Amino acid sequence: MPTLSEVARHAGVTPATVSNVLRNRGRVGATTRQRVLEAVEALGYRPHLAARALAEGRAPTLALMVSSIANPFYPEFALAVERAARTSGHFVIICNTNEDPHTGRAYLDQIAGTLSEGVLVTNANLDLADLHTTESRGTPVVLCMWERPNEPPGLPCVAVDFRRAGELAGAHLLELGHRRIGAIVGSKASGIHAARYEGFVDALRAGGAPKGRVKHAADTIQGGYEAARALLESDPKLTAIFVTNDLPALGAMHAAADLGLNVPTDLSVIGITDIQLARESRPALTTVAVPTVEVAGLAVSLLRELIESSYGQAGRPTTSVPMRIASPPELVVRASTGVPRSR
Amino acid sequence: MPTLSEVARHAGVTPATVSNVLRNRGRVGATTRQRVLEAVEALGYRPHLAARALAEGRAPTLALMVSSIANPFYPEFALAVERAARTSGHFVIICNTNEDPHTGRAYLDQIAGTLSEGVLVTNANLDLADLHTTESRGTPVVLCMWERPNEPPGLPCVAVDFRRAGELAGAHLLELGHRRIGAIVGSKASGIHAARYEGFVDALRAGGAPKGRVKHAADTIQGGYEAARALLESDPKLTAIFVTNDLPALGAMHAAADLGLNVPTDLSVIGITDIQLARESRPALTTVAVPTVEVAGLAVSLLRELIESSYGQAGRPTTSVPMRIASPPELVVRASTGVPRSR
Repeated sequence: MPTLSEVARHAGVTPATVSNVLRNRGRVGATTRQRVLEAVEALGYRPHLAARALAEGRAPTLALMVSSIANPFYPEFALAVERAARTSGHFVIICNTNEDPHTGRAYLDQIAGTLSEGVLVTNANLDLADLHTTESRGTPVVLCMWERPNEPPGLPCVAVDFRRAGELAGAHLLELGHRRIGAIVGSKASGIHAARYEGFVDALRAGGAPKGRVKHAADTIQGGYEAARALLESDPKLTAIFVTNDLPALGAMHAAADLGLNVPTDLSVIGITDIQLARESRPALTTVAVPTVEVAGLAVSLLRELIESSYGQAGRPTTSVPMRIASPPELVVRASTGVPRSR
Repeated sequence: MPTLSEVARHAGVTPATVSNVLRNRGRVGATTRQRVLEAVEALGYRPHLAARALAEGRAPTLALMVSSIANPFYPEFALAVERAARTSGHFVIICNTNEDPHTGRAYLDQIAGTLSEGVLVTNANLDLADLHTTESRGTPVVLCMWERPNEPPGLPCVAVDFRRAGELAGAHLLELGHRRIGAIVGSKASGIHAARYEGFVDALRAGGAPKGRVKHAADTIQGGYEAARALLESDPKLTAIFVTNDLPALGAMHAAADLGLNVPTDLSVIGITDIQLARESRPALTTVAVPTVEVAGLAVSLLRELIESSYGQAGRPTTSVPMRIASPPELVVRASTGVPRSR
């Protein structure tokens, strides 16, 4: 591979001039610029990114920490992040923590600040303390899907009002006439889906409906399947199930099918997020859509701002911790919800 | 962040000794080794990967080129690759080409040999010429899922006998008694699924069954849905559909549901691959399983061998192009295939 010096010799300029042309820096005349680009072309020169990263004290990638690449939400989100990052010439390293804080810490220690100049985190079950450590070493961190806009996490973040999502789902079921509604929460009681469930309970209270049974489950199709079977066996008169995430909601529909219940005639099911499978299931899943692409764009642009401003680096003045709030969630009515049979 | 020299000073040794301890190279006594590790711990030293990469002329990541991260097979494969790579301390950069050769070329130019010391390619619709260029610059390339073991691609690869997969699917349908079988091919006629379809046709021929209608479709749920509707409208007497991939097979089942056909009583559907959704669909999908985890492991270990041996680098003797062959595909019978009603 040709070196920068060879390009410079070929173009009859100094290596510094070649470097300036390639980075769009300094003053270079149009003719000289043209000559350098022709030499780059002629020799097939590729800038050595690792060398440039080292020289500039930065690396040209962003790291995206996800908790489970096997959950289809994360590839969808990764795709949106990758598209947003590529507009600024960044590549995305996807780090899959498999919901294990130790793996997450290993990725942070190995990648942050060396291979990547910034870190995006999506519900990766990481200790906030580990993320603060990364930040204090000078590598900005952005939480991508903070679920409680009113309770800032102390780290830069993009927030989505997930409590509102739960509220919309509950209000939709009440409006259809449901009064006996079960709930499946795809995390522990104190876990990341708690705000969604709180919003659902708010809606029940506002509508004067009783708070029904609730099951906590794994955030998977299988988890939703088992929880729905348990709910329907303990209360066969349920006419609807609210689920805090689309993936377990799909499992709840499978459980209904295996129990001989028609969705939505015998049982309405609603989820949250609007992953691609929600549109592609049979019946198609009613859900509360979260603005995934918008969140990815906001997260990447916030991270780039923090990188440019050397946010959080030792010796820099500490500014307030930024939070971007994405558009509110929206109800998407499809085929899995309807008027209860017994209405 | 502390430097290597500071660690050396703290431990009372030379920087070279620190380096040897951290890389498990050279001869270092047990006491000295212990002193260095204590200094690393005390100062919170992290090796600077980009610097090490530059010094050693290699980068510590592997790049995985996938054609569509939105297709759930690729996240599943990426997960398996990541697990295999982590055992040797490599991180995986996932590059999503979106089935666009230009994007693929951009990734190869920016990442291969600088950020990544090797490239894994899975059906990424890349020009073989671009991959040869990358290889000739000294960065090994491994094709992960070559579909024709008998026709080597001229690049190192892991091959799976996909013709055999199509044959097993066809034989299964014939054995159940189906004679009027449609086919959906998730690529162009000359595309990557051609071998699978050839195997299916082999089985029909061996069983003396007529070659039925075939539709080429997008390799998505929606693509399979549309193709199945078209097949069933043009030939309502079909009793089974063979699909070259699980994702469009799921779409074919949705089409049957929308047309009021019961699977498998009215229509049997079979796919190839055994992605997670195949197990999680209702009815669960009969498919021919491909050894995904094994292929990922073989691909990573082959790539590591090529990196260690400086395979393909200018001036090195050219050896024969290696190919690893994975275990043969296996039929997995679930609920979507059965005896035809009219038998």
